[in-house]
Amino acid sequence: MRPKFLSISDAVIEKIKSGELQPGDKIPSENELIRYYEVSNTTARKSLLDIENRGWAKRIKGKGTFVLNRTVDHRLTRTLGSIYATRRGFHESLLAEGFKPHNLVLEKTVMDDGISSEIGGKHFIIEGPVLKIHQLRYADDEIIKDETKYISLTLCPKINRMPTEISYFKVYEDTYHLRIDEVKQTLSTEIVEPDSELNNFELTKSTPMFILDSVVICKDEKIVEMERSFYRGDKYKFAIIASPDYNDVQ
Amino acid sequence: MRPKFLSISDAVIEKIKSGELQPGDKIPSENELIRYYEVSNTTARKSLLDIENRGWAKRIKGKGTFVLNRTVDHRLTRTLGSIYATRRGFHESLLAEGFKPHNLVLEKTVMDDGISSEIGGKHFIIEGPVLKIHQLRYADDEIIKDETKYISLTLCPKINRMPTEISYFKVYEDTYHLRIDEVKQTLSTEIVEPDSELNNFELTKSTPMFILDSVVICKDEKIVEMERSFYRGDKYKFAIIASPDYNDVQ
Repeated sequence: MRPKFLSISDAVIEKIKSGELQPGDKIPSENELIRYYEVSNTTARKSLLDIENRGWAKRIKGKGTFVLNRTVDHRLTRTLGSIYATRRGFHESLLAEGFKPHNLVLEKTVMDDGISSEIGGKHFIIEGPVLKIHQLRYADDEIIKDETKYISLTLCPKINRMPTEISYFKVYEDTYHLRIDEVKQTLSTEIVEPDSELNNFELTKSTPMFILDSVVICKDEKIVEMERSFYRGDKYKFAIIASPDYNDVQ
Repeated sequence: MRPKFLSISDAVIEKIKSGELQPGDKIPSENELIRYYEVSNTTARKSLLDIENRGWAKRIKGKGTFVLNRTVDHRLTRTLGSIYATRRGFHESLLAEGFKPHNLVLEKTVMDDGISSEIGGKHFIIEGPVLKIHQLRYADDEIIKDETKYISLTLCPKINRMPTEISYFKVYEDTYHLRIDEVKQTLSTEIVEPDSELNNFELTKSTPMFILDSVVICKDEKIVEMERSFYRGDKYKFAIIASPDYNDVQ
């Protein structure tokens, strides 16, 4: 006979696979499993461990066990095209997914001259002074993103004094009271070789890389942030949801 | 002295670079250049040819000269996360950009059993019968997309009798009167080798590939279409625009 704890973990994993439990969701606790399946605490604990060992969830001490944001191909999923999703910072997302995030700042400078960028065939400019932050983003000691942001110091004075783990997006809204009107992004892909100059990633083989360019636009067409980031294509996946457009007459 | 025709084409190209003229827009005609810059028709014609030769626009006989949808890196840009943009089909977009589109249908079958797919950790199902269309999409004799669509024949009876160049999206709305509620997509990337089984592209070297999975959802959570397509990553770029979410309280 199949051990009881296995049928329980199978049932929970089925809920993750079907999407009933979503990445970041808390899965039933030991006590909940005991009550619901009428089993001993040993069985309940074994189930939770089994789910974790099979790579579907991760226990965070004192907080519970959470569904990992990994699809069948074990890539992290990030949602584009939603300001709501963008608000959750890099650091916070990884924590919720059971990773240990860590940042290494390679450069943090104030550029007096401003910066320009081309997104989707259009030019965007941030007038100086601009804060440039170039950092490597780690999940569990592995570099998964190489990120360069340019932030308007006119719109966000003294933002250079803040720690780099913050969700900048939230800070724009909450600390600087900026109303974000639009985020424009383009995504391209490229093969990066281990010996390439582009490579801050410590790659050991040719790796597909996502290149995300973005501008964050607030009231009066003012640009508060530009970003150019490299995401490891073997670690990430992007999700986009389209709903009927504002301008659509239904 | 710099020839007059060059200053004119420079001025027009500047407008393309700045985004004032967008991909697919018509650039000024010969007559408009003659009137505006007060030049001869030879000079105006030379300017238009120069803009075309420099790769910024393409003349379509009897229609005018149109801005090509190619950024500095000469990749085609496609917008995700907008139902409005999705309405314009593959075929029509390439035509507007001055390419000669062409489709090669590899498979067109009716599957009685239906089909399921996982997008962003969630499972979606189309009950049978389902039309499967696998086709290679060409621009100027080069394969740029390898596309497989699954379409509900319950929601779209007899859609298998329609030609494959149509914008399916428009047909769902106009012919079958379906109200599209949401399109969910994920984008991943992979390196494809010339000798790979995946490769319908006639590649001569390792090439980064975008893999786009999508489901088109209409009223009552019914799925009308699923797609899995490979886009050549060296030819394409994706653009995403995020505006404040519907649910946001401002």
